[in-house]
Amino acid sequence: MVIEFYYHPLSPPSQVVWMVLKELNIPHKENLVDLLSEDNNKEAYTAINKYKVVPAIIDGDLTLSESRAIAMYLCVKYEPKDKAERLYPCSGVAEIANFNRLVFRDIDNYQTLLKYLNGDEIFVGTASGPKENLLPKAIAVLEEVEKLLSGKQYVFGNHLTLLDFFVLTTVSCMEVIDTDWKKYPAIAKWKSDLMKLPYFEECHAKGVKEFVELYKEYCAKSASNPERK
Amino acid sequence: MVIEFYYHPLSPPSQVVWMVLKELNIPHKENLVDLLSEDNNKEAYTAINKYKVVPAIIDGDLTLSESRAIAMYLCVKYEPKDKAERLYPCSGVAEIANFNRLVFRDIDNYQTLLKYLNGDEIFVGTASGPKENLLPKAIAVLEEVEKLLSGKQYVFGNHLTLLDFFVLTTVSCMEVIDTDWKKYPAIAKWKSDLMKLPYFEECHAKGVKEFVELYKEYCAKSASNPERK
Repeated sequence: MVIEFYYHPLSPPSQVVWMVLKELNIPHKENLVDLLSEDNNKEAYTAINKYKVVPAIIDGDLTLSESRAIAMYLCVKYEPKDKAERLYPCSGVAEIANFNRLVFRDIDNYQTLLKYLNGDEIFVGTASGPKENLLPKAIAVLEEVEKLLSGKQYVFGNHLTLLDFFVLTTVSCMEVIDTDWKKYPAIAKWKSDLMKLPYFEECHAKGVKEFVELYKEYCAKSASNPERK
Repeated sequence: MVIEFYYHPLSPPSQVVWMVLKELNIPHKENLVDLLSEDNNKEAYTAINKYKVVPAIIDGDLTLSESRAIAMYLCVKYEPKDKAERLYPCSGVAEIANFNRLVFRDIDNYQTLLKYLNGDEIFVGTASGPKENLLPKAIAVLEEVEKLLSGKQYVFGNHLTLLDFFVLTTVSCMEVIDTDWKKYPAIAKWKSDLMKLPYFEECHAKGVKEFVELYKEYCAKSASNPERK
């Protein structure tokens, strides 16, 4: 029995789980939940995730939502215990604490960027463009990640971890405002390394590109129809 | 050497860590970081937490921020491994996954309530009252927690866990708008049980009461001075 994976390719949290499934070569069936048709609000999906968001998985008896909880679960269950460079490091109390600290910090940063982009409701077509008064906070997030990555190949330790997927999908939100990554050389270098992952294009880059197009389309519509603002 | 605990009693994330320290009887020194005097932005504290938020701890070589990461760390390090009813349950892969799912969901709910209360910047005196258009989302959070607690004594399993502290500090945010808890009998019952914890008053209730007063004071000031809106 393979894992049932419910996702939308434009959803950053879906991309995280998708990349974990690919990285760990976990057999799974991809079930598209079309957010643009509001399939997430229909009973077929709310029976799986009552919170009506993607992603979710069904693995045997377990139905699970929340991308980070799913990512951690997949690692705990399917990553070989004797693997040296684990996606989800767990070799010491302090190491785990620092890893978790960065996981929770990334959630704050993701929320900050979503607030700036005013993108909470993009899939229901109400995106009307970024809130310019929040730009300094969004810039501060990118500067924080730039510092975090400075002189390092990965976010945590010396190898690829879940944090690379979490932070990648966070900073990529800023593609929608045509961020000039030359201003963030450590982020740019790190992203260009991650691009070599065989699933990067399918599970991340393609979705980001489409997300940017959709965001811009909604913003343009909103600008030409003041009632929608 | 005791743990150095940096906190502010009105900060919900500080309350979480404080309750964990008390529940596990961990020797610690309480260091007040006066947010109202912006001590969190001063070098003495930014050297401990560059993100300028409370809480943080120093435990020997480890300096740690992010309340949930601290709470988990304290349990992993100081909770007896043979204790039956652990604050941070870890007895099975599926159990941990479900626990984590609720941890991440609670963060979403906390953010939703903060957005409604417009309380992000309360400590710098810019609170101007709730955003009424977001009230339905805030109500939905309370209804979700009401369902979660229905027929149960605790949020997770049959005993007190970190999730009770996380969810408690989340829903208590709604005290600032004089929420009628009679509408949420399961939450009311659960809270009245938690009130029996010997540290409940000191580490939670007192801070909530002062937070409510401060919020109302700022909102009143803001209402009488339109420029501050």
